[in-house]
Amino acid sequence: MEISLKYLPGGRAATGRNRMAQSDLDLKEMALKEDLKFYFMNPCEKYRARRQIPWKLALQILKILMVTTQLIFFGLSNQLVVSFKEENTIAFKHLFLKGYSGVDEDDYSCSIYTQQDAYDSIFYVINQYRQLKNISLGTLGYEHEGSGLKICKQQYKKGAMLPSNDTLNIDVSTETECIFLKPQELAGKKAELKLNSSFFNLEFYRLIQVEISFKLKGIALQTIHARELPDCYAFQNTITFNNGAHSGKIKIYLDSDTDIQECKDWHVFSSVLQKNTQYILVFDGFVILSCFASLILCTRSIVLALRLQKRFVNYFLEKYKRHVCHADRLEFINGWYVLVIISDVMTIIGSILKMEIKAKNLTSYDVCSILLGTSTLFVWVGVIRYLGYFQTYNVLILTMQASLPKVLRFCCCAGMIYLGYTFCGWIVLGPYHEKKYQQSGFPVTDLHEFLKDHGNVGYRKEQTSMPFICCCRRQQSDDNLILIN
Amino acid sequence: MEISLKYLPGGRAATGRNRMAQSDLDLKEMALKEDLKFYFMNPCEKYRARRQIPWKLALQILKILMVTTQLIFFGLSNQLVVSFKEENTIAFKHLFLKGYSGVDEDDYSCSIYTQQDAYDSIFYVINQYRQLKNISLGTLGYEHEGSGLKICKQQYKKGAMLPSNDTLNIDVSTETECIFLKPQELAGKKAELKLNSSFFNLEFYRLIQVEISFKLKGIALQTIHARELPDCYAFQNTITFNNGAHSGKIKIYLDSDTDIQECKDWHVFSSVLQKNTQYILVFDGFVILSCFASLILCTRSIVLALRLQKRFVNYFLEKYKRHVCHADRLEFINGWYVLVIISDVMTIIGSILKMEIKAKNLTSYDVCSILLGTSTLFVWVGVIRYLGYFQTYNVLILTMQASLPKVLRFCCCAGMIYLGYTFCGWIVLGPYHEKKYQQSGFPVTDLHEFLKDHGNVGYRKEQTSMPFICCCRRQQSDDNLILIN
Amino acid sequence: MEISLKYLPGGRAATGRNRMAQSDLDLKEMALKEDLKFYFMNPCEKYRARRQIPWKLALQILKILMVTTQLIFFGLSNQLVVSFKEENTIAFKHLFLKGYSGVDEDDYSCSIYTQQDAYDSIFYVINQYRQLKNISLGTLGYEHEGSGLKICKQQYKKGAMLPSNDTLNIDVSTETECIFLKPQELAGKKAELKLNSSFFNLEFYRLIQVEISFKLKGIALQTIHARELPDCYAFQNTITFNNGAHSGKIKIYLDSDTDIQECKDWHVFSSVLQKNTQYILVFDGFVILSCFASLILCTRSIVLALRLQKRFVNYFLEKYKRHVCHADRLEFINGWYVLVIISDVMTIIGSILKMEIKAKNLTSYDVCSILLGTSTLFVWVGVIRYLGYFQTYNVLILTMQASLPKVLRFCCCAGMIYLGYTFCGWIVLGPYHEKKYQQSGFPVTDLHEFLKDHGNVGYRKEQTSMPFICCCRRQQSDDNLILIN
Amino acid sequence: MEISLKYLPGGRAATGRNRMAQSDLDLKEMALKEDLKFYFMNPCEKYRARRQIPWKLALQILKILMVTTQLIFFGLSNQLVVSFKEENTIAFKHLFLKGYSGVDEDDYSCSIYTQQDAYDSIFYVINQYRQLKNISLGTLGYEHEGSGLKICKQQYKKGAMLPSNDTLNIDVSTETECIFLKPQELAGKKAELKLNSSFFNLEFYRLIQVEISFKLKGIALQTIHARELPDCYAFQNTITFNNGAHSGKIKIYLDSDTDIQECKDWHVFSSVLQKNTQYILVFDGFVILSCFASLILCTRSIVLALRLQKRFVNYFLEKYKRHVCHADRLEFINGWYVLVIISDVMTIIGSILKMEIKAKNLTSYDVCSILLGTSTLFVWVGVIRYLGYFQTYNVLILTMQASLPKVLRFCCCAGMIYLGYTFCGWIVLGPYHEKKYQQSGFPVTDLHEFLKDHGNVGYRKEQTSMPFICCCRRQQSDDNLILIN
Repeated sequence: MEISLKYLPGGRAATGRNRMAQSDLDLKEMALKEDLKFYFMNPCEKYRARRQIPWKLALQILKILMVTTQLIFFGLSNQLVVSFKEENTIAFKHLFLKGYSGVDEDDYSCSIYTQQDAYDSIFYVINQYRQLKNISLGTLGYEHEGSGLKICKQQYKKGAMLPSNDTLNIDVSTETECIFLKPQELAGKKAELKLNSSFFNLEFYRLIQVEISFKLKGIALQTIHARELPDCYAFQNTITFNNGAHSGKIKIYLDSDTDIQECKDWHVFSSVLQKNTQYILVFDGFVILSCFASLILCTRSIVLALRLQKRFVNYFLEKYKRHVCHADRLEFINGWYVLVIISDVMTIIGSILKMEIKAKNLTSYDVCSILLGTSTLFVWVGVIRYLGYFQTYNVLILTMQASLPKVLRFCCCAGMIYLGYTFCGWIVLGPYHEKKYQQSGFPVTDLHEFLKDHGNVGYRKEQTSMPFICCCRRQQSDDNLILIN
Repeated sequence: MEISLKYLPGGRAATGRNRMAQSDLDLKEMALKEDLKFYFMNPCEKYRARRQIPWKLALQILKILMVTTQLIFFGLSNQLVVSFKEENTIAFKHLFLKGYSGVDEDDYSCSIYTQQDAYDSIFYVINQYRQLKNISLGTLGYEHEGSGLKICKQQYKKGAMLPSNDTLNIDVSTETECIFLKPQELAGKKAELKLNSSFFNLEFYRLIQVEISFKLKGIALQTIHARELPDCYAFQNTITFNNGAHSGKIKIYLDSDTDIQECKDWHVFSSVLQKNTQYILVFDGFVILSCFASLILCTRSIVLALRLQKRFVNYFLEKYKRHVCHADRLEFINGWYVLVIISDVMTIIGSILKMEIKAKNLTSYDVCSILLGTSTLFVWVGVIRYLGYFQTYNVLILTMQASLPKVLRFCCCAGMIYLGYTFCGWIVLGPYHEKKYQQSGFPVTDLHEFLKDHGNVGYRKEQTSMPFICCCRRQQSDDNLILIN
Repeated sequence: MEISLKYLPGGRAATGRNRMAQSDLDLKEMALKEDLKFYFMNPCEKYRARRQIPWKLALQILKILMVTTQLIFFGLSNQLVVSFKEENTIAFKHLFLKGYSGVDEDDYSCSIYTQQDAYDSIFYVINQYRQLKNISLGTLGYEHEGSGLKICKQQYKKGAMLPSNDTLNIDVSTETECIFLKPQELAGKKAELKLNSSFFNLEFYRLIQVEISFKLKGIALQTIHARELPDCYAFQNTITFNNGAHSGKIKIYLDSDTDIQECKDWHVFSSVLQKNTQYILVFDGFVILSCFASLILCTRSIVLALRLQKRFVNYFLEKYKRHVCHADRLEFINGWYVLVIISDVMTIIGSILKMEIKAKNLTSYDVCSILLGTSTLFVWVGVIRYLGYFQTYNVLILTMQASLPKVLRFCCCAGMIYLGYTFCGWIVLGPYHEKKYQQSGFPVTDLHEFLKDHGNVGYRKEQTSMPFICCCRRQQSDDNLILIN
Repeated sequence: MEISLKYLPGGRAATGRNRMAQSDLDLKEMALKEDLKFYFMNPCEKYRARRQIPWKLALQILKILMVTTQLIFFGLSNQLVVSFKEENTIAFKHLFLKGYSGVDEDDYSCSIYTQQDAYDSIFYVINQYRQLKNISLGTLGYEHEGSGLKICKQQYKKGAMLPSNDTLNIDVSTETECIFLKPQELAGKKAELKLNSSFFNLEFYRLIQVEISFKLKGIALQTIHARELPDCYAFQNTITFNNGAHSGKIKIYLDSDTDIQECKDWHVFSSVLQKNTQYILVFDGFVILSCFASLILCTRSIVLALRLQKRFVNYFLEKYKRHVCHADRLEFINGWYVLVIISDVMTIIGSILKMEIKAKNLTSYDVCSILLGTSTLFVWVGVIRYLGYFQTYNVLILTMQASLPKVLRFCCCAGMIYLGYTFCGWIVLGPYHEKKYQQSGFPVTDLHEFLKDHGNVGYRKEQTSMPFICCCRRQQSDDNLILIN
């Protein structure tokens, strides 16, 4: 950051002329200059100048350590939850989908091509569900309030197909028929009767989809290791046999919606189990405290800066009868402080959420992840500011600052071409070679690099005169059509 | 675009000398200058100068929105058609190819290596075809006019192989034998007889290929959702057992040619079905209208520009007794307008095609895709022009303009080396490691970057004197504007 | 190519002094200058100067067309041969290897882990060989002169393993035992006896490898389409069960050595078969002719250049009493001509080879491929020379010329680091993560780019003074240790 | 390396003034200059100046050859050991894991999803172990001292699950139950009894893991080829059925810890076996000798350099009354010699280790690999120094030297952003799309390139003044806030 000479009152020549009249103004000016100088100093210089110990810097370093530690602990416990959900979904696929290969085919799990396979797959689900407790390795149970197994088929209404002359009688409106198998009656005669009913006589030419859904409950015992109460889960599984396209291929989807619930259904008795999370809660408390301190210090700095700004504006108006332009006023508001404030607020909210989750009052892992993650990103990025105080890094950061608008402008222009290209490619090439197109993307790199190379050329000039305070900046009319008489 | 000062008559010094004699010429000159100035202005400046509202700009923005919306609707319906075709082909492969793994091996679907497998695979096709209606999940039917299943074997004529002394008696000419199985007689005794005939006693040493072909018809019911009449399809499937190489490996190809037809064979009765595409047709109409308006406005601009050009040429001839060179004349024809005109014409044709397709009169999805896609690309690229009016983007676009010939020249040179390399690599390495070669390609990047780096060096000079009007351009003083008074 | 003024006798000032005495020398000098000027002209300038029609240029263009066409024809027929060999190898793997998955595991085809599998796999080979003619789809036959199936087992001599106290009695020297099964006796009792012999009682702890080898003959009938005589092939198949590592994993290799032979064993009778390759032979003849013409023209040019060089050297010695330095002498020898000559010689030899192959006298496809491929590469690269005559390309080529030594020098330096890195990486990381290491390679790119960037900096200076004739060139001692007194 | 003029006494003008008084000092100065000049010469110049034969250079070249040869020999024998271990592990997986596909799934070998599969897999291991000697292809034996097969199950204590009302009674503490099957009793009735015991009645809801471990011994006979004594191995296999997550998926791990041991258990008798490694030991001896020689020569050079440094410092103090700064003193210590010394020490230690390994006294292949590999890397990198003597390479190396701090500084800054990004990405995206995140990484390349481009701009200036001896170097205050009165 450089303040150009031309700004502040003009050299010795000017001061030599009317020194007497301006003696009191000079004093005020002196103080302002001193304050400005001090304001734009970095911590080291401030320490040298006024022996001011850099509390904010120390606090930021402490915060980095604490916030990162907190994030890692939260991430690890979060990962346990996610992997439990994922492994259960995979286990369901292996248990309920006949001929599941272990890898999903596309967005669906597997696909079938013959009528026999369709019947087999449907009854396989029912049978596996029936004997689930003897098969499954997990701690699963039927959900009692639920309606057990629900099988629905959706088809076109009043359809008929006469094979003699290939007449197809289709009604546009669809109807949905459902059948229920309660867990209690699964092995009984009633179930047998239902399974032999005409419901399972599928007419594939008008069948749109068969949907088998059931609710299971499970319990994640892993948290017992940490002497915490276990989380209970409700799995809402939906197996869909999608024949919507009538293309001879039925795609089978297994969708497992997992919710973390309080352990109401499972009655967990345990001899020594107790809440053992005090230490982590205390640590979270410290994080909140340090963020609060940092928040206050930064807010104070911004308030002081605004006051200094006001003084400078007044002085400028008094002396030169001109208003300080908007860009120069903005220089007084330190963007880094704003970043730290945002980061602090996010950390505080995130930490409170985290404490609630630990106390089993909340289960919103996602919101908490985003808050803590973003704040940690900001804290780490904030360190770059302190690197900026070392001179060699300073150039780096100034360069980045200066080139940002150029990069944005270029992105806007390239984005235009890219959008046109995307639409054109999608319609002309896309549907025919769906997968290849997705892989190739747009050869933007070449063009990108080429233009960036050029951008640097023009950039070198500006770099020498990084403008700091210039009121009447106007774009040089270097590219205009000049037709002077 | 800059017109240098030295061009038009020379400053005050020159005008001061014989002001009287040139007073009428000056007036004409004044008007021309004024018009030229106005012509090369951008919309903002035009608005400031003569309060001319930028209709064309507004129209282009409207057009972008409409054309893109239209493209997306068309693309979505197109994608349904394509995915229906693809899924049917995959379903056929699963139904008719024994041991099909789900993934094509190379350009063929699967391959067999023993005589038993060959017989099994052929009879598998026949059996599956026979009971197709009981197996297939899709709404398929036999094509009645067709000849049912057609099995052809192509082999060398009069071949014989005596195992005793390994004598091979081969005639160069080939013969093709065919057998037909009508759908009506598939289950009868006649079919059994045919299948047990000597036709299926294959002599592999002279067999070239077995081709089983049959026609199926299908119906895509998905469009019923949109309350449109369903499309009917004819699938011409050809399963080829290719033994042409006699290498001990028979490659099996399944080729499914799909045609969209009017639903003649299928008699679709539906209670509430009706054409429900008015809204889309009306929208298409608006697109055509807006394109037509843009077409007229741009044509008018070009006509006006040509008139101005004529005036300038005459003036120049009159004043300097010289012809304006070709390059400068071209400056008057705005390339962007040409782009917009081409785009408009394509959109209009494409939209008419699209309306016809929607009305089930045409099925040429491909032509329509290309027309609409290309026109959308042009419309989006056309936006760059308006970005050019902002000064910072202008440099970008001028740079691209200036560097294009250099890039083309480089491509030509590199292409030469690449072609030589390709031929050499193909013959020396290619056949032995076919797949590896395809992956590696040519390490052109390094060279490319190197030369581009160099290209920039020379380029920086030229950039300062972006040439606008130069009559006597010659290779040596290649880009300079020389027009000494 | 530029000739600097300073070289040739010195301006008007010098010539003005003793014009009389030098009048005859001046005439000679004039002629030499004229010849030098003409020699370094490009075809266009030569045509303008002396109306010399560029025969060589025309011939080169004709040659490109002919050589490329010839290459494509040869490549296509070559590809047939290669794919026949490859497909046969794959077919053998499917026929003789039990449980072959269709893809080779590593460098071996498949692997077994239990004793039962080992016995099964060995007897599977024997059985498949026995009934080969009834299984195989290819036109294969047993080789009659050969010894049929040869099964060899290599094991450590006099080994014994007492299970009681785990004593292993191993002799270092190995012994090899073999058994032969003639094709004639394959189905007989003799074969049964042999198969039940103690030979097949394998002692895995001392078994090193089992090798089953047999010879088959085949015939590629595909060439009949082109009315050529078919090629006959001899396949020497070796199936190796490698237990050398005694690690509990036997790797199975199938090695198929294929030789193209004259059809001695197979007696091919064919009614209309005849050699139908005259057209191609005639075309090859034309290629040879054109290359010969180009060869003569280029040799003549080089001879003329050497004469001119001699004249220049003499003149220089006479006038300046100095020898022309080696680098300047080399300027007279046009590298492009040398390239064309090499290319021509290779094409001629390659074409003759190709004709011999077509006439079934030779089967050395490989040598012919390399000759024709390299010559085509040279011919295409040679075109760049003519691009060099256009001025904008000239810069490109000169740049490449100038930067070549720099690039080579860099490669040498980076190669040193790379070699060290490779050895270190191989020993430290290599054996433990074999595959990962192969993928990662050496991150040379970053360093490379960095240095190239730097190279350009220094390069820009040199570029302005592309040295053409400088006798006493010496590297500037810019990096030396200067210790002036 | 350049020594600037300003340093050493000032030109002829200065020396001309008071020549008499300084005559003795001049003599000393002369000698010092002469020595300094000679010290900073390269071998070629030294040879020209004092006919000093470059022994060190010759020795380095000899060393490269010897060290590389040694490394290759060691690497090859090392690779045998590693591949034996790996192949055994793969063989164990095929032998003991039911349904092992040949490829590990993730970090575990395979996974099971039903109770039946769990029982089957466990009993499969026991059965395969029982009949190992009849199945395995390797030379394996049971370890007699060991306890045979050890099966342990770890589960939550006092658990009970009443299916009626889904009550789960879990105790936090875990218990581990084990069962042993000695190799002697494997086939007997005792084993049958144990296998039918209630131990194998698993309660999956409280089961944490089942661990089957056993010890096997093997012998690598491959070394017999080289007439060396064979290595003996102890395999500690542990098969873990991990149900810790209770997610319905049991992951199966096979862990094979391999130790190289002396052949105590196996009694290997062999008729002609003898230690046949003299040649290699002698070669290793020569390597040690040459390294020792190089070590001595380099140490001597450094000692001489330090003496010269002392003389220079004294002279400088005497003449200019100033201390030579630290950076200039460091110039006397040749970094290359230090590198060579480190490399030599590592080679010597590595070679001694290698000899011990060959003599079967040690088995620490890893340490030896690292020592020999690193030393070879250093030796190859050391060659670059000699390239530095050629002037064109010199620029390359100086450039690398100059740019290193910049690169490091950039890495530090980018690393900060990267760390923040990593933490944020891990918590926000990571757990939900684990694999995708790992692949994508951080798009650091763009930023990296951008900044490097800028770095070059500033870099070009410094390059011209590569500072060699500058005592009072201070950073230019180019980015500071200047507020002059």
